[in-house]
Amino acid sequence: MGEADGAQSVTAALVVIGDEVLSGRTKDKNIGHIAERLTDVGIDLREVRIVADVEDDIVAAINALRQRFTYVFTTGGIGPTHDDITADSVAKAFGVGIDVDPRARAMLLEYIAEKDLNEARLRMARIPDGASLVVNEVSRAPGFRIGNVIVMAGVPRIMQAMLEAVLPELEKGRPMLSRTILAEAKEGDIAAPLRAIAERFPAAVIGSYPFRDEADGRFKTNLVVRARDVDLLEAAGDAVAQMVDEAARG
Amino acid sequence: MGEADGAQSVTAALVVIGDEVLSGRTKDKNIGHIAERLTDVGIDLREVRIVADVEDDIVAAINALRQRFTYVFTTGGIGPTHDDITADSVAKAFGVGIDVDPRARAMLLEYIAEKDLNEARLRMARIPDGASLVVNEVSRAPGFRIGNVIVMAGVPRIMQAMLEAVLPELEKGRPMLSRTILAEAKEGDIAAPLRAIAERFPAAVIGSYPFRDEADGRFKTNLVVRARDVDLLEAAGDAVAQMVDEAARG
Repeated sequence: MGEADGAQSVTAALVVIGDEVLSGRTKDKNIGHIAERLTDVGIDLREVRIVADVEDDIVAAINALRQRFTYVFTTGGIGPTHDDITADSVAKAFGVGIDVDPRARAMLLEYIAEKDLNEARLRMARIPDGASLVVNEVSRAPGFRIGNVIVMAGVPRIMQAMLEAVLPELEKGRPMLSRTILAEAKEGDIAAPLRAIAERFPAAVIGSYPFRDEADGRFKTNLVVRARDVDLLEAAGDAVAQMVDEAARG
Repeated sequence: MGEADGAQSVTAALVVIGDEVLSGRTKDKNIGHIAERLTDVGIDLREVRIVADVEDDIVAAINALRQRFTYVFTTGGIGPTHDDITADSVAKAFGVGIDVDPRARAMLLEYIAEKDLNEARLRMARIPDGASLVVNEVSRAPGFRIGNVIVMAGVPRIMQAMLEAVLPELEKGRPMLSRTILAEAKEGDIAAPLRAIAERFPAAVIGSYPFRDEADGRFKTNLVVRARDVDLLEAAGDAVAQMVDEAARG
């Protein structure tokens, strides 16, 4: 992925923090959304890790990934309950202190009456030293950014608002463009000419995704050509489309 | 997750191999299924990584995870096209050779006429030295198991068949049981008594999952108690249910 023109790309990893996803109780809805939005704006999502609500695991994932990618996003674990340990884990990963942040506390008070701002809710204003806040238009409790790590909520509606709030301030690369060509063929029947095209266009990324068409029960293949350069995308895409046509004519 | 009684547990990690998931084009459907099935049978899924179709990334993920967990499952990248590099990557991770396996070739011939078994399709019979095969009742091309690593297809229907084929031969622990209690309350209003219960039952795992109820637009909370011991589950679950009742009565 992006190997061919990786040097100029802006990259990201995502850490999903959540026992509930690993146990299968909750089906994650954030990975697909974040993957799409980052691709749209020209940030290449290169790796996702789903880890448990365990401090050592969160710290290890963040420290491994923040060295390797331009940005690391996290989702989950920033609420008011005992199992919300993301902010403390991020502070530990960076080796900095953490305390109630007056700016975050003021944001909470826009939504929560002062009498309801109990000790548990005040935990949502605990922000690692040196972090900037990521606003949350839905329920006010902010995310934050420290270094290249961006910490967001796990509730999809809130996460999406935070992502839109932070995207404008991030560095972007040339967006990866893509073109999908449907082949009414099993991938094994077109694999050889497809490989030849992939070798002819080494700077494009060509993927082959077989699926079973529920309408007629047959296995078909989506061929996806990706490139940052529109001329390259067109040339490689046309080559694939022509190959698919020829294969259909037998 | 499972920290309290982790010593007796059987653990797993999952590596999802797929550019198409990282680009957002395809929404993964395998993680949730595998998480549920492993939980059912008593294998704790502890980490998931989604990596690109890049050999170095696949090798690094497999080698990092196979040291740490009882089993590592992979999905994706075992088809006939140029971008299917999982089998070669796994062979490299284990430092073993790889070639067309006569058993796997025979399986392919149950489904594919010999004249259609072209060079591309024969790639699906390339199996690392020393691996055992995982049968595929859907389209025959097998997965495989080498050491504690189990390699499966990415197409959900085929992956599911392979998972069911391999599960009977795996070691299992005591299944993690769970009980979900719905609180018609924001989690910030019940966080303090919930923390007290979590501290009273350190061997249970108690999670709090806020969500917005689309029916009435209100934020509510699912409280999930998990334990391997049924008596512990009942005691901790009853404590949470009683707390939720008391909170509702104000």
